[in-house]
Amino acid sequence: MNQVAPTGDQDSGSYVEPGGEFTRDTRYITTRITADGRDGYPVEPGRYRLIAARACPWANRTLIVRRLLGLESVLSLGLCGPVHDKRSWTFDLDPGGVDPVLRIPRLQDAYFARFPDYPRGITVPAIVDVPTGEVVTNDFNQITLDFSTEWRQFHRDGAPDLYPEARRGEIDEVADLVFRDVNNGVYRCGFAGSQEAYDKAYDRLFSRIDWLTERLSRQRYLVGDTITEADVRLFTTLTRFDPVYHGHFKCNRSKLSEIPVLWAYARDLFQTPGFGDTVDFVQIKQHYYIVHSDVNPTRIVPKGPELSNWLTPHGREELGGRPFGDGTPPPPPQPGELVPPGHGAD
Amino acid sequence: MNQVAPTGDQDSGSYVEPGGEFTRDTRYITTRITADGRDGYPVEPGRYRLIAARACPWANRTLIVRRLLGLESVLSLGLCGPVHDKRSWTFDLDPGGVDPVLRIPRLQDAYFARFPDYPRGITVPAIVDVPTGEVVTNDFNQITLDFSTEWRQFHRDGAPDLYPEARRGEIDEVADLVFRDVNNGVYRCGFAGSQEAYDKAYDRLFSRIDWLTERLSRQRYLVGDTITEADVRLFTTLTRFDPVYHGHFKCNRSKLSEIPVLWAYARDLFQTPGFGDTVDFVQIKQHYYIVHSDVNPTRIVPKGPELSNWLTPHGREELGGRPFGDGTPPPPPQPGELVPPGHGAD
Repeated sequence: MNQVAPTGDQDSGSYVEPGGEFTRDTRYITTRITADGRDGYPVEPGRYRLIAARACPWANRTLIVRRLLGLESVLSLGLCGPVHDKRSWTFDLDPGGVDPVLRIPRLQDAYFARFPDYPRGITVPAIVDVPTGEVVTNDFNQITLDFSTEWRQFHRDGAPDLYPEARRGEIDEVADLVFRDVNNGVYRCGFAGSQEAYDKAYDRLFSRIDWLTERLSRQRYLVGDTITEADVRLFTTLTRFDPVYHGHFKCNRSKLSEIPVLWAYARDLFQTPGFGDTVDFVQIKQHYYIVHSDVNPTRIVPKGPELSNWLTPHGREELGGRPFGDGTPPPPPQPGELVPPGHGAD
Repeated sequence: MNQVAPTGDQDSGSYVEPGGEFTRDTRYITTRITADGRDGYPVEPGRYRLIAARACPWANRTLIVRRLLGLESVLSLGLCGPVHDKRSWTFDLDPGGVDPVLRIPRLQDAYFARFPDYPRGITVPAIVDVPTGEVVTNDFNQITLDFSTEWRQFHRDGAPDLYPEARRGEIDEVADLVFRDVNNGVYRCGFAGSQEAYDKAYDRLFSRIDWLTERLSRQRYLVGDTITEADVRLFTTLTRFDPVYHGHFKCNRSKLSEIPVLWAYARDLFQTPGFGDTVDFVQIKQHYYIVHSDVNPTRIVPKGPELSNWLTPHGREELGGRPFGDGTPPPPPQPGELVPPGHGAD
């Protein structure tokens, strides 16, 4: 849900909340694509297009879940570039700067096709109804849950259950704490407009990091003994921690790579098919350092840090766990959806 | 020699060099205080006042050398606060905001007393002639060398020889490389006004870091087997690396604490009397993050990183070496010159 100028005036491209706390606008388009089609958008192979950006942690979740569940062949993917203009995320990576399926240069075109006066931020991830060109939803929390539950008949053979019924209460609870203090907590550090607001966000972030360290020292995954939605949600923040949040957002008690348990947990997931193969560190760094010009006026993108350490042994197998439960890992990404060489941890 | 608005318009407080490379103005007041008084300023106990700021790496060198040589009783010390205004370093830490000896609120007053139209940056360290209130020199490179050579008759018993005649060529050579690529190299990263200028500075910095690692893996100190001026000069940049340069200046291939040899070397010096006891991490962070508002517009000071790791064992004794040569460590700092509790690595 990284959005264009989430606070203040869209034209100014300002992100920092002057004088106070950063508060994320969490109102989204809540239309759902469901098996029964009760919102007018039934699950249907080939009808919808997921629009994401590899840079964005909220969109990155959808890339992972789509891969883990094997939805690639029924739900196509459009990718915006890492750097958007003041109006919208754009398809600047595509030939001619236009999405080859939707034939639009800006994601906002799909938003305006459905809501001509759409007043809020143009965010990724979003799902677009291809026949009409209209955005269906950008409600990132619900999108991945619906992939797991509503799209079930189109899951690949061996798809894991990322949102098992018996564990939903615990997954929701952990995910909510992680959202408030970590996923959004890093933004609350980086976009704080006062020392006091920053200090508060920093303390909350690292208290939660300590809590996570404690929890993950005893168990391989956040909930139960398999990968769930809760792990996906934490993972996309952890991959951005050392390349971006540590310096750019001043989340610098230590690097992730200096927190042994959480660092091993993050590498374990990174090295699991469907996770690390969706991560583009180059686009991640470009996005934050270039777009947030009120945090980084020079827009210079740091060359560091070294990232090959993501591929080092993690030793988490010793804690047991069955990553995919009764299922199997996904096959490699489709050729058209590979992260370019040099953009991962290679 | 950290100076007020070293590039561009003084009123704008701009540090980044728009569109290109940062180039430090290295013209200083080259008058020297010497044993023979040939420039009109003979070495004399009680006559001069060293003006420094704990925040500034160039001034920090003078604090260390003065301590190591035991010049405290013959050369008094005035300390500017970490945050200066647009015009000058100020004595805002002193009662009434006035240096108790010089009776001036701004260091520039001493510069203007001698040169009414002084056109360049007001820098620390500076040495002021107390009777006239006029600045004598701000030539930071020469100041510490003159402490070692010209002030010799006032050295404490057991003072080390930081600039031994037989090693001067090698010390100068190493110090010059370290100045260009490391001491000033970090500023060239942080104040670069283009991606190209930054990339170039980053590569030079970390190539030199690798060169230093190689050199220091075989020997305890940079030159010979004792502490010299070369170590002092590298040390004050290393102490600022993780708290400031890593994030604020984007010197982020890795933290210093992730470079085993250099990190052990830095801790060895830090734990040597006369080095770590001059370091005020709180003032260091405040200085950079608050003063460089064109790098950090919010002026928010990061809470991290954890710094207690500076006190962990370093194991460098195994390489041999005699820190003070035929001399002895200095006694603890004088009560009036202690770094406040919570500002060091405690």
